[in-house]
Amino acid sequence: MKATFMYGAGDVRVEDVPDPVIQQPTDAIVRTVRACICGSDLHPYHSLPAGEGAKSMGHELIGVVEELGSEVTGLNKGDLVIAPFAFADNTCVFCREGVHTSCLHGGFYGTDETAGLQAEYARIPQASGSLVPVPGVGEDSGLLASLLTLSDVYLTGYHAAFQGRVEPGKSVTVIGDGAVGLSAVLAARQMGAEQIILMGRHRSRTDLGREFGASDVVAERGEEGIARVLELTRGEGSHVVLEAVGHLPAYEQAYGVVRPGGVISRVGVPQYESAPIGFGSLFGKNAALTGGPAPVRAYIKAAIPQVLSGEIDPGRVFDSTVGFDGVADGYAAMDAREALKVMIAP
Amino acid sequence: MKATFMYGAGDVRVEDVPDPVIQQPTDAIVRTVRACICGSDLHPYHSLPAGEGAKSMGHELIGVVEELGSEVTGLNKGDLVIAPFAFADNTCVFCREGVHTSCLHGGFYGTDETAGLQAEYARIPQASGSLVPVPGVGEDSGLLASLLTLSDVYLTGYHAAFQGRVEPGKSVTVIGDGAVGLSAVLAARQMGAEQIILMGRHRSRTDLGREFGASDVVAERGEEGIARVLELTRGEGSHVVLEAVGHLPAYEQAYGVVRPGGVISRVGVPQYESAPIGFGSLFGKNAALTGGPAPVRAYIKAAIPQVLSGEIDPGRVFDSTVGFDGVADGYAAMDAREALKVMIAP
Repeated sequence: MKATFMYGAGDVRVEDVPDPVIQQPTDAIVRTVRACICGSDLHPYHSLPAGEGAKSMGHELIGVVEELGSEVTGLNKGDLVIAPFAFADNTCVFCREGVHTSCLHGGFYGTDETAGLQAEYARIPQASGSLVPVPGVGEDSGLLASLLTLSDVYLTGYHAAFQGRVEPGKSVTVIGDGAVGLSAVLAARQMGAEQIILMGRHRSRTDLGREFGASDVVAERGEEGIARVLELTRGEGSHVVLEAVGHLPAYEQAYGVVRPGGVISRVGVPQYESAPIGFGSLFGKNAALTGGPAPVRAYIKAAIPQVLSGEIDPGRVFDSTVGFDGVADGYAAMDAREALKVMIAP
Repeated sequence: MKATFMYGAGDVRVEDVPDPVIQQPTDAIVRTVRACICGSDLHPYHSLPAGEGAKSMGHELIGVVEELGSEVTGLNKGDLVIAPFAFADNTCVFCREGVHTSCLHGGFYGTDETAGLQAEYARIPQASGSLVPVPGVGEDSGLLASLLTLSDVYLTGYHAAFQGRVEPGKSVTVIGDGAVGLSAVLAARQMGAEQIILMGRHRSRTDLGREFGASDVVAERGEEGIARVLELTRGEGSHVVLEAVGHLPAYEQAYGVVRPGGVISRVGVPQYESAPIGFGSLFGKNAALTGGPAPVRAYIKAAIPQVLSGEIDPGRVFDSTVGFDGVADGYAAMDAREALKVMIAP
């Protein structure tokens, strides 16, 4: 089968490899219907050292169940399923508390043990807990794009808004006009935010942000950007700040615009370890900090009917589709910001 | 009148100064019935540079109203009142949202504009919003110590537990066996925590912590302390960590023992600005960080009846009482950990 590997910064290759096989009785094999490239894949695309071998790529997928291990329950061959970007048993103590990304028997794709999902077939560990079937939807459905976003991007934006406790009457600032930021706008609108300020400077993206529900767009960055958000909030700042970038300047912007007693919710994977959290940044104004890798599995069952009914259409973040021969170009297009988010259709 | 000043690290003096007078129509003058020394006063006691003049000290007080500015409402001369450690108008947008420590017209004691409260008399700005009367309690009441803790220390511990969302069934770790840490233990017990692990190494203090509700005491620090808390929580960590110290090692201990999806709530004033918050500390396990200067005014009306009924007795954190001639010795005793918390009775 074809599968995607990164050999170093900027070096993405699709190669022929053996099809995956069941390794554990809890595994399933899924044939890919749609996969995609994530904004977080661009981090290694900028920084992965060359000469250290191939990194298996991808963690978002919808597909059809081809084979089931002997201990898998609740799934049948032929089911159309969504694979959350982290696998999880959905039964351990942390899964029961809604933190599936910390599952005691879970993990991530694209490791030495578990191949990435930008491939024609995938081995899904802990399949009973991980895979969520979508009954009544065929491989030709017009909803595939939106269903695919429930694998990661939309529900990552949703996680930000949920952890930030967005609710009616609240002012929300979203930092970042990438696909996760736009998803966070859509989720914040779903939760009834009164004001949604989108910080981003790419017109085609912020236009989609407005359609998703942004009430204001701030193109300025740094001190200027902070001043503009304060101006839009009567000098008070936003109750909730959704940080969907992961670089330090975005976090610095976040504590600059958060209101006393407000919440910063991060879902951009931090590209830093230490950052200001003392009296001058968070503590003095009782600002809280939350977020992390989204436990998509905790939210997916509620989101599927919203997609099927047309209540939300998060699949609009995909503005480009490639086959496996176009995956490397897809990375390049996302990196150049020529594409917002690239879908892979085998 | 007598008032307390710090001239540099370790140099506390009580001096005769003019009595305070009404400066604004929103001021009140209060005669001190009880004041006290705060753990946070020990930070300048360690680090205040000498030769830069006198710093006016103190921010905790119960007293009797002596004089009222022309615009003060809701108070009468002779009322016994509690003064929260930050003054606030109790009407601005942030006060209405429960963040009185960020009041638009509020502030702190011991500044160039507003003298500290370790004095025989005090000028209280924004008196209508700041001062809370306690009807029916006289200057000879046995409850003065516990009422005084509502000025800061108990409700600071309560703020930690409240912001950390302690509730029945939760495991809570409290870092620090000072008066705020012990108050946090008492508040966590009030909120029904199932397990309260107190991290501290001073036997007389941790013994009071057990009486306040701690189920376990961990004297170890650093990696050993983290290992011991994990052992006490089946390897999972605590749902809520209340950090009542303010030094970086205490924060590092906090993210070491917090459970995936858990909350670190800080009320020890951070003696650092930057600290780890990236994938390896908070983000990877979806741990949240909250806390700040306690908006005591938001909690005080609910706490007064608890003290008056005897439901809580937070005044037990006071183990020493001095007159104004003993204030300097009181600082020294707290610094040497010979006293847990020192009350000042004029």
